Amino acid sequence: MNLRNCMIGQSGGPTAAINASLAGVISKALESNAFEHVYGAINGIEGLLENRYLDLTTPFKDPILLSKLAKTPAMYLGSCRYKLPQIPENATNLTVIKEYELIFSIFKELNITDFFYIGGNDSMDTVMKLSKYAKLHGSQIHFIGVPKTIDNDLDGTDHTPGFGSAAKFVATSMLEIIHDSMIYNTKSVTIVEVMGRNAGWLTAATALSRSNHQTSPDLIYLPEVVFDIHQFLQSIETLFKTRRNIIIAVSEGVRDKNGNFLEEEAFCQDENTTLSSSKTDVFGHVIHDGTGKVLENIVRNNFGCKTRSIELNVLQRCAMHIASKTDLEESFEVGEAAVCASLSSKSGVMITMQRTQTQEGTYKMLTSLKDINLVANVEKKVPIEWISPQRNDITKELYDYLYPLVQGEVQLEYKNGVPDYMDIQHLL
Amino acid sequence: MNLRNCMIGQSGGPTAAINASLAGVISKALESNAFEHVYGAINGIEGLLENRYLDLTTPFKDPILLSKLAKTPAMYLGSCRYKLPQIPENATNLTVIKEYELIFSIFKELNITDFFYIGGNDSMDTVMKLSKYAKLHGSQIHFIGVPKTIDNDLDGTDHTPGFGSAAKFVATSMLEIIHDSMIYNTKSVTIVEVMGRNAGWLTAATALSRSNHQTSPDLIYLPEVVFDIHQFLQSIETLFKTRRNIIIAVSEGVRDKNGNFLEEEAFCQDENTTLSSSKTDVFGHVIHDGTGKVLENIVRNNFGCKTRSIELNVLQRCAMHIASKTDLEESFEVGEAAVCASLSSKSGVMITMQRTQTQEGTYKMLTSLKDINLVANVEKKVPIEWISPQRNDITKELYDYLYPLVQGEVQLEYKNGVPDYMDIQHLL
Repeated sequence: MNLRNCMIGQSGGPTAAINASLAGVISKALESNAFEHVYGAINGIEGLLENRYLDLTTPFKDPILLSKLAKTPAMYLGSCRYKLPQIPENATNLTVIKEYELIFSIFKELNITDFFYIGGNDSMDTVMKLSKYAKLHGSQIHFIGVPKTIDNDLDGTDHTPGFGSAAKFVATSMLEIIHDSMIYNTKSVTIVEVMGRNAGWLTAATALSRSNHQTSPDLIYLPEVVFDIHQFLQSIETLFKTRRNIIIAVSEGVRDKNGNFLEEEAFCQDENTTLSSSKTDVFGHVIHDGTGKVLENIVRNNFGCKTRSIELNVLQRCAMHIASKTDLEESFEVGEAAVCASLSSKSGVMITMQRTQTQEGTYKMLTSLKDINLVANVEKKVPIEWISPQRNDITKELYDYLYPLVQGEVQLEYKNGVPDYMDIQHLL
Repeated sequence: MNLRNCMIGQSGGPTAAINASLAGVISKALESNAFEHVYGAINGIEGLLENRYLDLTTPFKDPILLSKLAKTPAMYLGSCRYKLPQIPENATNLTVIKEYELIFSIFKELNITDFFYIGGNDSMDTVMKLSKYAKLHGSQIHFIGVPKTIDNDLDGTDHTPGFGSAAKFVATSMLEIIHDSMIYNTKSVTIVEVMGRNAGWLTAATALSRSNHQTSPDLIYLPEVVFDIHQFLQSIETLFKTRRNIIIAVSEGVRDKNGNFLEEEAFCQDENTTLSSSKTDVFGHVIHDGTGKVLENIVRNNFGCKTRSIELNVLQRCAMHIASKTDLEESFEVGEAAVCASLSSKSGVMITMQRTQTQEGTYKMLTSLKDINLVANVEKKVPIEWISPQRNDITKELYDYLYPLVQGEVQLEYKNGVPDYMDIQHLL
């Protein structure tokens, strides 16, 4: 008997679908009979460094629990934002780095043969470094990256698990906000701020609220192109000639021609403002808020009409109650594909999704693999040709790309009037 | 043949259930065969003054369309925030007030015999005034108030249509935010700001996220009691001794011992702040924002931990995709009851909901009537005895009151991946 043990970790920001990928890995690992133990690292690589993990093998043999896990938002195993140290270019098998040594000693102790890491760009960086260190030191452990991010900004894959559910929440919320915005017979501007620091995929998904008979949002601003405040005001003025209630979708990350975020502009205008702030996270990403609020104030000052801004906030990444069935099923499949890849002795790869068509010409997704070195730390943005020439809307090509990803509704179990999600008290 | 014509209007802020009441009125009116025409005033009493209305009779004979209407958020007929002039105490049948004369002349022209107005406190004020003016001038038109408000602050009724759906959205979102908040192994405070200017019913509904195995939110602050910032900080400090991630629900309307809203306090602390503002609406209500943001800054300054505030915003009143089945069914029944009341020659009344029990001891709602003079302009707040002695949670009695109102899920029709709501282009 040459039984293996595997470990799974989750990292980065949550999505509604990341536990579906976890469930996919567990399911395929158990089904394969290749593994004696399936471990889950608590709080990703950071928790692993503190020797915190769970044995998932026995509980998840119960298919009901596995299905419940797949329909629970955020991370059942907890997350981290931990960046492993760089491995020098000239590193050899004599190069010893403390964090890596600790991780590999835990792997050795638990006889880990396969490690699956579910996450976004930063998590793929971790997979890349671990597989590089393993190769340097002759370790046979397989490292597989399982993508997820609501931002849809991972390279080498048609789209990312988690994006479709976020897009469905954003499109549905936008539709409901449109209904809310049109009830009064007075001029109004409603600005909806959508997540997406550098990539506008999720903001673009607000256009899906037009899928039936609505025509709003009326303006859509993505961070891939320069945000010009004068053109913005001009567009509103033009729209007011034919309609009363204007609804605008704007990415949190739009920038002016100098590359400044809008709330930085607000900073310059009023250095005493304390209700907005710019910070950076451990990966050096700027954490910013207030784009919608800044625009709200500018619009109100210019048009004097009823103006409001709405930040969709963290529900974009955790609103399981309106998840995309397509997304959840694909996320599960991506998890399964990771186990298949590992059992085929792959390592240092990320599972990718390729778009194809059925014989009837409808959308179909196939999984594939990509060298992790080619995808880690590369951000995939919305192609400029998918943004309208006026820079305030998306093209039909982008709509057609987005459309299949939000299809289908997930039937959740409700108990006592609220969704019956997995208990996560073990994260306390 | 003594056929009657009726008219329906909607007013005030939207809810997910207000079109269910509209569908209930239309359904019962058509079923009764008492009416030749069922009209809908566009933009409530304000639109009626401009002679804007629709004939709803023929289209809504289609049961599929009627069902679709009942599952469409916000107001199909549009809304207004229009306050009718006061009728002097000493008014007689000789007292002529322009707005009323115009309204009654339109009623006469259309042979309106029954008028149904669906709305909150301010709309009941309109029903009260119209029925008073009618009585003064010998008009035989019946005026019936159909309650709705997510705030649940109408007097004389156990609860209000629309509240249950808002409560279900708030409880579900809170549950998902809890999952989102617990994933990192670092101290954090998450503050969720909930709508409810003077009444804390909706903020209290965040406690429903505890219905299964969660224990959060950890602190709940209602506007019915004084908000003490020092006790607030003390409670967080105490909680941090036993847990890492603290989740707090706070009503937008909490006030300090001097009756000041928190963002007014922020104004005093920093008079250069421009990103928050205080305004009043046509009814003299203060429109304020920023309570969560103000607390976020105070907590961050005091504890130095990861702190964020989340404003649930307008989705609280329009998120049909997570509406309460109980609420939608009851809202429909309340609409039906309004027609029954009118056909029984009632006028100047509001339909109320009375809580009772089935023989098996489970929750059951019965409709009843109340004199509109006794309910208009009276705000029903959360009883102090339903707030915990520490003033930072609710009691079991309040939980038991809330619990039945969020039961059941609504099966929406989806088309192209988003809900298939009624077209509201006629409001453009």
